[in-house]
Amino acid sequence: MKSKTGFFLTIEGIEGVGKSTAVKFIQDYLTAAHIDFITTREPGGTEIAERIRQILLTPNPEEVIVPETELLLMFACRAQHIAHKIEPALAAGKWVISDRFVDASYAYQGGGRQLNLDQIKTLDKWVVKTHPDLTILLDAPPALGLARAKHRGEHDRIEQEKVDFFERVREAYLQRAKADPTRFHIIDATQPLTTVHAEIKRSLDEAQRIRGSRQ
Amino acid sequence: MKSKTGFFLTIEGIEGVGKSTAVKFIQDYLTAAHIDFITTREPGGTEIAERIRQILLTPNPEEVIVPETELLLMFACRAQHIAHKIEPALAAGKWVISDRFVDASYAYQGGGRQLNLDQIKTLDKWVVKTHPDLTILLDAPPALGLARAKHRGEHDRIEQEKVDFFERVREAYLQRAKADPTRFHIIDATQPLTTVHAEIKRSLDEAQRIRGSRQ
Repeated sequence: MKSKTGFFLTIEGIEGVGKSTAVKFIQDYLTAAHIDFITTREPGGTEIAERIRQILLTPNPEEVIVPETELLLMFACRAQHIAHKIEPALAAGKWVISDRFVDASYAYQGGGRQLNLDQIKTLDKWVVKTHPDLTILLDAPPALGLARAKHRGEHDRIEQEKVDFFERVREAYLQRAKADPTRFHIIDATQPLTTVHAEIKRSLDEAQRIRGSRQ
Repeated sequence: MKSKTGFFLTIEGIEGVGKSTAVKFIQDYLTAAHIDFITTREPGGTEIAERIRQILLTPNPEEVIVPETELLLMFACRAQHIAHKIEPALAAGKWVISDRFVDASYAYQGGGRQLNLDQIKTLDKWVVKTHPDLTILLDAPPALGLARAKHRGEHDRIEQEKVDFFERVREAYLQRAKADPTRFHIIDATQPLTTVHAEIKRSLDEAQRIRGSRQ
């Protein structure tokens, strides 16, 4: 379903492109506009989904997580997230801002891990009935993003991947964005922060127009 | 793959039919026959799979596990279990005795939860490349099994289901067994324990013949 009242906005991008700063900017914008919203993230967003996130992101050298497990856990997380957080908030007329959503599975498990795309599409169809109204893709070369992410200290299991993994993730994100230019706004994250914010603001202004036109 | 050296035996059945007692009997038989074996269980069997098992079985009234999540977590568990425990043991020539395996997904998520059978078949095809050589199905009416299970105290999230849920699980197990009579040995678990054990012994004697014929 597309909610008639709420609005579902997702932020996508590889490590270090500034998703957290973007989410903060969006929160300030929505607060100033007196819009009722929640922010959430994937993998995670509910108590059970956060427990699955821990399994997914904790490095475990003694028992490698096989690619199928990673993919199934991501979608198991997502099923909880949609049922217990995203859909109730949208049904209550709220905006939902999610730091990553299903596009990340296409980018990370599809592009990064090079898993069978048909498997991802199948799981998407089974699990995801509620789709984002708008997706902001923050795009930057992995080398830049990873250098920024490095400053934050310890890397999780997925952040420990090599640069070519993130090159494939980025490429998969860009392909997905180009295939659906109405939903995706690609923002060059290498620009100065004020420019990035101005572009996010334009996206949010448009989001308000889209939402307004549905009422 | 069918292992040329090890032997993969699974024990299936609803709560309280005596699976644990059967596994103990099998362990004693294999030990006496000087056969190298491991025993394991589903959901679980590896460190990560056991963590997923906790999520699956812990009752959580505040956040219901949606059926798709349950199904995906079961197969995520299974992927780890196969890669890190079952296949290495079979490759080393050991017998693997598993308290439940993929048939349980058809019985519990298919029969019990009445999830789409095609989804289960699809996940089975993606995840399960190693199939049991022999499966012992301990069969008894749910009322009897649940009464036995009750004596063990606290019920986990799935054991808290009602009798009609387990009637459907039992029926799905029986259908699956009838569709593959070569692999499945159905044992009437309402018989006296000595009779049940005699039938398990016959199954194990046959397992040894099957294994012997492959060498």
